[in-house]
Amino acid sequence: MPEIGARVWVVPGGHVPFPSNGREPDLTSFDQLCVLNATDTDAALSLDLYYCDAEPVGPYRITVAARRIRHVRINDLIDPEAVVLDRPYGCLLRSTVPVVAQFLRQDTRLPGVVALTGTMAYPAPG
Amino acid sequence: MPEIGARVWVVPGGHVPFPSNGREPDLTSFDQLCVLNATDTDAALSLDLYYCDAEPVGPYRITVAARRIRHVRINDLIDPEAVVLDRPYGCLLRSTVPVVAQFLRQDTRLPGVVALTGTMAYPAPG
Amino acid sequence: MPEIGARVWVVPGGHVPFPSNGREPDLTSFDQLCVLNATDTDAALSLDLYYCDAEPVGPYRITVAARRIRHVRINDLIDPEAVVLDRPYGCLLRSTVPVVAQFLRQDTRLPGVVALTGTMAYPAPG
Amino acid sequence: MPEIGARVWVVPGGHVPFPSNGREPDLTSFDQLCVLNATDTDAALSLDLYYCDAEPVGPYRITVAARRIRHVRINDLIDPEAVVLDRPYGCLLRSTVPVVAQFLRQDTRLPGVVALTGTMAYPAPG
Repeated sequence: MPEIGARVWVVPGGHVPFPSNGREPDLTSFDQLCVLNATDTDAALSLDLYYCDAEPVGPYRITVAARRIRHVRINDLIDPEAVVLDRPYGCLLRSTVPVVAQFLRQDTRLPGVVALTGTMAYPAPG
Repeated sequence: MPEIGARVWVVPGGHVPFPSNGREPDLTSFDQLCVLNATDTDAALSLDLYYCDAEPVGPYRITVAARRIRHVRINDLIDPEAVVLDRPYGCLLRSTVPVVAQFLRQDTRLPGVVALTGTMAYPAPG
Repeated sequence: MPEIGARVWVVPGGHVPFPSNGREPDLTSFDQLCVLNATDTDAALSLDLYYCDAEPVGPYRITVAARRIRHVRINDLIDPEAVVLDRPYGCLLRSTVPVVAQFLRQDTRLPGVVALTGTMAYPAPG
Repeated sequence: MPEIGARVWVVPGGHVPFPSNGREPDLTSFDQLCVLNATDTDAALSLDLYYCDAEPVGPYRITVAARRIRHVRINDLIDPEAVVLDRPYGCLLRSTVPVVAQFLRQDTRLPGVVALTGTMAYPAPG
């Protein structure tokens, strides 16, 4: 299968909603990166988080196996540093092979209501 | 009319919400692919679904006639294999002619509430 | 000011929600095209609507003046033919000068709830 | 770090929802631009707002420091002119260095409900 996608992806508008209402983990508020690796080679991802008031933190290391997807909740990342809820951030994803990346937010701050938003991430050459 | 679009489209962030609340089929939770074929030739689509823990499944075969659109609910796909609800997936669409593809999710897991999210799919050369 | 944008834009996933709840027109369910013309020349737009079961309908003609935006509700279009609510469609926009186009849906089918979704439209050469 | 992004970004579909319900500022209705500057140079942003019935207003000046993000609520902009709520607009962002820009709307017009929508902005050469 041919290589499909890009090696660098950017999401400027991160912000894990806080608090959550409803059954965990289905209805927990989250920001999520969804990555598809259509190649026949495992993808080693390196994720850097950018902030408005501090130097970038990373790399967070994630593997997406060949011919697999992976949906990663940003609020589950803990190494090198747990991601603080309700703090604005952006992220830059680098991959050893071309992948495709999408961003999704689930917001359950209000009881009995779920809000969703998302967008394809921005692919950069590199 | 000139050819408009691409022959390969990717959506990494699939996940059909479960359960649903409200009248079927309008308010059923769904993931949907929306495809527009502006050419004068029928488009034969081939859809492969990618998972986090298993080899890709496909091809699902879909036709979009010349100068037509088609909105396909992922949860209605059954051949070669019914799509499991509440299971993360991604998809890769190939078309015999250039088309344009958009992704839409409707989430009615909570009674009396509808949430929507969507994005243009990612167009790849190929 | 330099020309910014493209002359052809595509949205495959149209579907005006029906019915609506709440005060008109703020809370009416709608699909909307939002167009920005950054050039110093008026843009003459020509919009064709595509369906799953009939030939395309159009052109709907819309003007966006130089250095202006215009947000057009699809459900307000009546010439050459009123757009039927709750019917899937896609659309193809052509402009005489480069513009930028975005799609937005507001869904108020359920009382007391508003859902939103949107995406940048797909820009095509042409 | 290599330069990532573009120097011009466009969002045609602005419209700050009005009114708001819920605790300020978390649940205030807003339109937001989220910008990531991955370069090692501060980015001087110049934002022009376009309207359907008046000449563009700007520039609004915003700085995004090197290796930082900034999430700017459009409804917080006051110089050269406060942005009117519930008025359609579009915006054009110029940056002295490449950045990545995303658009997000939060709509709390209805009590007890939050709706979200967003999209990556449209990157233009320039």
